[in-house]
Amino acid sequence: MTISRDDILKTFHFRHACKEFDAEKKIAEDDFRTILETGRLSPSSFGFEPWYFLVVQDTALREKLRKFTWGGQKQLPTASHVVVILARKSRFMRYDSEYIADLMRNVHKLPEAVIKKRTEIYKKFQENDFKLLESERALFDWACKQTYIALGNMMTSAAMLGIDSCPIEGFEYDKAEKALAKDFAIDTDEFGISCMVTFGFRVKEGREKTRQSTENITRWY
Amino acid sequence: MTISRDDILKTFHFRHACKEFDAEKKIAEDDFRTILETGRLSPSSFGFEPWYFLVVQDTALREKLRKFTWGGQKQLPTASHVVVILARKSRFMRYDSEYIADLMRNVHKLPEAVIKKRTEIYKKFQENDFKLLESERALFDWACKQTYIALGNMMTSAAMLGIDSCPIEGFEYDKAEKALAKDFAIDTDEFGISCMVTFGFRVKEGREKTRQSTENITRWY
Repeated sequence: MTISRDDILKTFHFRHACKEFDAEKKIAEDDFRTILETGRLSPSSFGFEPWYFLVVQDTALREKLRKFTWGGQKQLPTASHVVVILARKSRFMRYDSEYIADLMRNVHKLPEAVIKKRTEIYKKFQENDFKLLESERALFDWACKQTYIALGNMMTSAAMLGIDSCPIEGFEYDKAEKALAKDFAIDTDEFGISCMVTFGFRVKEGREKTRQSTENITRWY
Repeated sequence: MTISRDDILKTFHFRHACKEFDAEKKIAEDDFRTILETGRLSPSSFGFEPWYFLVVQDTALREKLRKFTWGGQKQLPTASHVVVILARKSRFMRYDSEYIADLMRNVHKLPEAVIKKRTEIYKKFQENDFKLLESERALFDWACKQTYIALGNMMTSAAMLGIDSCPIEGFEYDKAEKALAKDFAIDTDEFGISCMVTFGFRVKEGREKTRQSTENITRWY
């Protein structure tokens, strides 16, 4: 099974940052589950899967998000589905965390000898190669980077299904973090917000896509 | 034009971190151009497109990369196509940079009044909302996050075409940065390495995909 180049390019041209959705149109449950599933099946560095997805369908909770989300004023009330993407906080992302050990043992199903060896590799990578342990933020941002792979994939699979989306970084971070604890009962020692993404159906066609030329962003060797 | 849920899920199950490619098999030029194009058409925060793609087909250059890329020992020599993804350094990503002004003016084609207003929004976002100006690294990592959307999309579009891929973070960062300047003639004041990604055709089937369960990574409200 392959998909034609033409259909792939049509998919990528279909996707745009949809600022307002038709509030009357809802995404079919099977379609939304497929979108979420492509997030779950996304790759992440060393398979650490540092993501967590909050699906916010409650109107009152969306209004709470909207108070500090200046970049989602029209999207949050009109979207069929709203997802807040969380990323694991730094102490869970450390090479020597219980979370990583548990992943290797119970998800990746690795033998103890391999776990020991990999832990050393992760230590070297985090300490020396990428210097991720120099600050809490560096390690958390590394976790967030992985969630952007899932973010991209979910928007692309939505577009494949003819569903629009809008990614949102335009929010006041501190207020969002507080709301996470207060209104969403999330342990903010464990998770922080990476970004939001909204899904639904456009009310009008998007502007023509603008991008730098291929020549300006590519060099062959 | 839409693609079926079944074909989407097959695509995401097909993709795995392919550690070794069949060195004899080359990706058709049109297919590779399509993969790159889906990187180019990817969304990025505020449309800043902070990416740059080095396509490394020269064997000697790949060997230079391989010296410090412990996570790409088999992939680099056997891949049909190797891409080093760069991200713009912090001073290009600042709200008040010439790069951003040029993008708004010449790519987004915005009128001056809108450019002025948006610059203020970006300032507030970078300074207050996401506190990206607190360090060079925070701003650069923010640029890198956007490149992971393109990374994810390129691997997904490859999978749609029946092409395998492997993303690579396993390299010694400082040596890679030095090679960027010395061997690739890249101005490292302008760009830094975000990650690498290799494309080609698997020599053997991948291990069964392991992931946390949907229940463990999703909460509905």
